[in-house]
Amino acid sequence: MNRDELIRQIEKKKSFLCVGLDTDLKRLPDHLPRTIEGALEFNRAIIEATAELCVAYKPNIAFYEAMGPAGWELLAETIRLVPNDCLTIADAKRGDIGNTASLYARAFFEELGADAITLSPYMGADSIRPFLAYEGKWVIVLGLTSNPSASDFETFGNEAERLFERVIRISQEWAGPDRLMFVAGATQTAELERIRQLAPENFLLVPGVGAQGGSLSEVCDACLLPEAGILVNSTRGIIYASGGEDFAEVARQKALELQREMAGRLLAV
Amino acid sequence: MNRDELIRQIEKKKSFLCVGLDTDLKRLPDHLPRTIEGALEFNRAIIEATAELCVAYKPNIAFYEAMGPAGWELLAETIRLVPNDCLTIADAKRGDIGNTASLYARAFFEELGADAITLSPYMGADSIRPFLAYEGKWVIVLGLTSNPSASDFETFGNEAERLFERVIRISQEWAGPDRLMFVAGATQTAELERIRQLAPENFLLVPGVGAQGGSLSEVCDACLLPEAGILVNSTRGIIYASGGEDFAEVARQKALELQREMAGRLLAV
Repeated sequence: MNRDELIRQIEKKKSFLCVGLDTDLKRLPDHLPRTIEGALEFNRAIIEATAELCVAYKPNIAFYEAMGPAGWELLAETIRLVPNDCLTIADAKRGDIGNTASLYARAFFEELGADAITLSPYMGADSIRPFLAYEGKWVIVLGLTSNPSASDFETFGNEAERLFERVIRISQEWAGPDRLMFVAGATQTAELERIRQLAPENFLLVPGVGAQGGSLSEVCDACLLPEAGILVNSTRGIIYASGGEDFAEVARQKALELQREMAGRLLAV
Repeated sequence: MNRDELIRQIEKKKSFLCVGLDTDLKRLPDHLPRTIEGALEFNRAIIEATAELCVAYKPNIAFYEAMGPAGWELLAETIRLVPNDCLTIADAKRGDIGNTASLYARAFFEELGADAITLSPYMGADSIRPFLAYEGKWVIVLGLTSNPSASDFETFGNEAERLFERVIRISQEWAGPDRLMFVAGATQTAELERIRQLAPENFLLVPGVGAQGGSLSEVCDACLLPEAGILVNSTRGIIYASGGEDFAEVARQKALELQREMAGRLLAV
């Protein structure tokens, strides 16, 4: 899905919600079997209940890898279940170079069919460029993350700039806003404005709303653009909002609450 | 394998060689089938031919992931083939936080049975600590890598220190040299001495000798300790040295050449 189409879907659905699919066998509703088949049923029900209300799904790859080889089949099946009007983001945070990066790109973009992948920038351009060789696919580079130890290295720097600022500045030399997004944590609202200055047109993938304490309203104040320019992710607050047989219906309600708030903000930009 | 045992193996084998297992179906010798079975036969032959001459094997996870679900089975099988007197390093360069990091730790340490994993430090302590919860397992943090764009971010900094120096300094607050190694590229010999100053006791995993242009002799000059304190990785120069039926025998010869040079250096420290 290209940038124009993404913006069109945001306008149509009045939503810039991304639903995290961190599917954990241990957290499946009690009535579902704690098996690959149970997890697939869970993902299918969540996707069917929320697809009208969101524009992206973000499976966290670790959750699928932890299930062993069958987890990869589950991931591939899950990506096939996502309708074409939603972006599929492989939250992989990979960061390796050359031939290795090319292999990861092939695995996620060709074999699994994801539209986008999250990448760690530590090793520089060599670790990002192989993913940009895939026309029509997105690269989402870690900028400033929402975890407490983001301050260990991401905010390290000098008087001119900090590491995350340098990452956002330099990586725009590799691709335009039609191919490149940044991860910017919702708990870092004070910095979101700065990130928006540095990347005035790029989409930002914003995790950390809800369970991690970030506020949707503050995120919008800091970096919402007329065409949205942000994808706000919620995971636990949607997919694990109920552990009962009503899990999909409750997930839909929680997604609807976020979508309504987003619709109001989009009208007001 | 703990630090004492690793040092004992280095002394016994007179080697600090790590053999990279970046097994690519496209690069298998012509007489082997380009299938998972062919790849397993290749790995088995390489391991049998080199196990006396090296102290570690480093499968690069991307090469296995690129084969799809069956690639995970191949990786697990390959790790089982590594004899107990060699360390198994999952070259994964993962970097995610909390629950996600715990899942990766479980996948690589428990399910696959690797002894060590390479990790990207971008997100800070939160992305490393969950791996340190596994007693007897090793964490290998990216310090200064051997690729050209290491200068994009790894050498960024201020008058007091650069990012890779900060990573090496701060991460030693999380674990001692019995649990923590660093990746330090062989092409960065001018910086290897600096890294040894900052991490006087830690093992360094040094890729980049051979195909990438690094010199074993210069690496040893810069950072070899009496107990070695380095694992020097070679991949393409060993496993793909011959594409014929003699691939394992030629791999053994190439490993032997490196082991002999290492034995000489260990005697001279």
